[in-house]
Amino acid sequence: MEKTRRVDIVSKVLAANDRIAAENRRTFAGAGVVVVDVMGSPGAGKTMLLEATIERLAGSARVAVITGDIATARDAGRIARHGVPAVQIVTGEFGGACHLEAGTVAEALGRLDLAAVDVLFVENVGNLVCPAEFDLGQDARVVVLSVTEGEDKPLKYPLAFQVADLVILSKTDLVPHLDVDMEDLRANVREVNPRAEPLEISAKTGEGMDGWVSWLGLVRSKKC
Amino acid sequence: MEKTRRVDIVSKVLAANDRIAAENRRTFAGAGVVVVDVMGSPGAGKTMLLEATIERLAGSARVAVITGDIATARDAGRIARHGVPAVQIVTGEFGGACHLEAGTVAEALGRLDLAAVDVLFVENVGNLVCPAEFDLGQDARVVVLSVTEGEDKPLKYPLAFQVADLVILSKTDLVPHLDVDMEDLRANVREVNPRAEPLEISAKTGEGMDGWVSWLGLVRSKKC
Repeated sequence: MEKTRRVDIVSKVLAANDRIAAENRRTFAGAGVVVVDVMGSPGAGKTMLLEATIERLAGSARVAVITGDIATARDAGRIARHGVPAVQIVTGEFGGACHLEAGTVAEALGRLDLAAVDVLFVENVGNLVCPAEFDLGQDARVVVLSVTEGEDKPLKYPLAFQVADLVILSKTDLVPHLDVDMEDLRANVREVNPRAEPLEISAKTGEGMDGWVSWLGLVRSKKC
Repeated sequence: MEKTRRVDIVSKVLAANDRIAAENRRTFAGAGVVVVDVMGSPGAGKTMLLEATIERLAGSARVAVITGDIATARDAGRIARHGVPAVQIVTGEFGGACHLEAGTVAEALGRLDLAAVDVLFVENVGNLVCPAEFDLGQDARVVVLSVTEGEDKPLKYPLAFQVADLVILSKTDLVPHLDVDMEDLRANVREVNPRAEPLEISAKTGEGMDGWVSWLGLVRSKKC
């Protein structure tokens, strides 16, 4: 198949996705739910961040999570243990596999009572490339990059960082054991997205969690 | 676009890829070059493994590397510093972005003198999902999983592990600083691919490099 034909097909897929994303956005606005799309590589620490976040928001916001994976319902299981609604999307069943789309999120919404939710996190498939291309109807997008992944990743995978409203550098407790140059990493984030000052977090030690919870509060207050 | 139509398009793309992969395989066989496709998440340690491998193979095999990235020629720059031919494929220019395809590899071959190469490593785009679907014409496929990514990744991203001839668990020097359960991780690799006994490697300390070099020798001897 020649290149122009493939680009044309991709454009049609993205246009169809954007229409459903706009519907999702209206649904979320109508229900007064703030929605955050959480992207990142496999093992970036997305699920652990959400587990810590649920504990921090307990009592101040009703949280729910949609998790996307190619196989298994492990992440939804981890989330549900914290006593919040968790819906697993297994993308292997959709033929799409490597990312969530607005349509798969719309289907998952049928399994959630949005009237009982204040903040909905959508944990995307672990992939630093494809999820960035698909609007889900979220209010904000976060990309989680583990410090173990190296300084150059924002430059090598720019789109995820460019579409993100917030960049989280995770697993900072490991920095003393790595050769990572944090100043270089921060500079590379700023180079691809000057408005996304990186937030450094260890869900394990709690470092940076205050800043993350404050940022979530700002996103909520903007929507109200 | 309805689902059956999209599945049909994907099938056509994969069939076209397989035809070019078969041509690549004939080219490699004709030149007596052993080709290893190296897959893994962003930051799994693919480039550093190849840098250490080049040093280990110096004098016993003429190595070349094709590296795939969405943006920048950083990886080819790192490889070239070790004195071997390195060709960077920037997939952002191909509209494909998230993985290498047989056609992009075929184009890169035009920039390599295969007569002067014994072992060609193809370092795929950092992505634990999409590269696994595309045959490049290689002799063997390796998936590199950093121990920092967690025990559950083989179960959650099964295809890359199922198509791999070898699974490398990288960055093992970090194990003492992580909560990772290595026995659980090894069991999960075996569950998705019983023939791919995982090899544990730290390119930093040199642990496991002997086993990796021996495995490469086996792949070469099978081809001769």
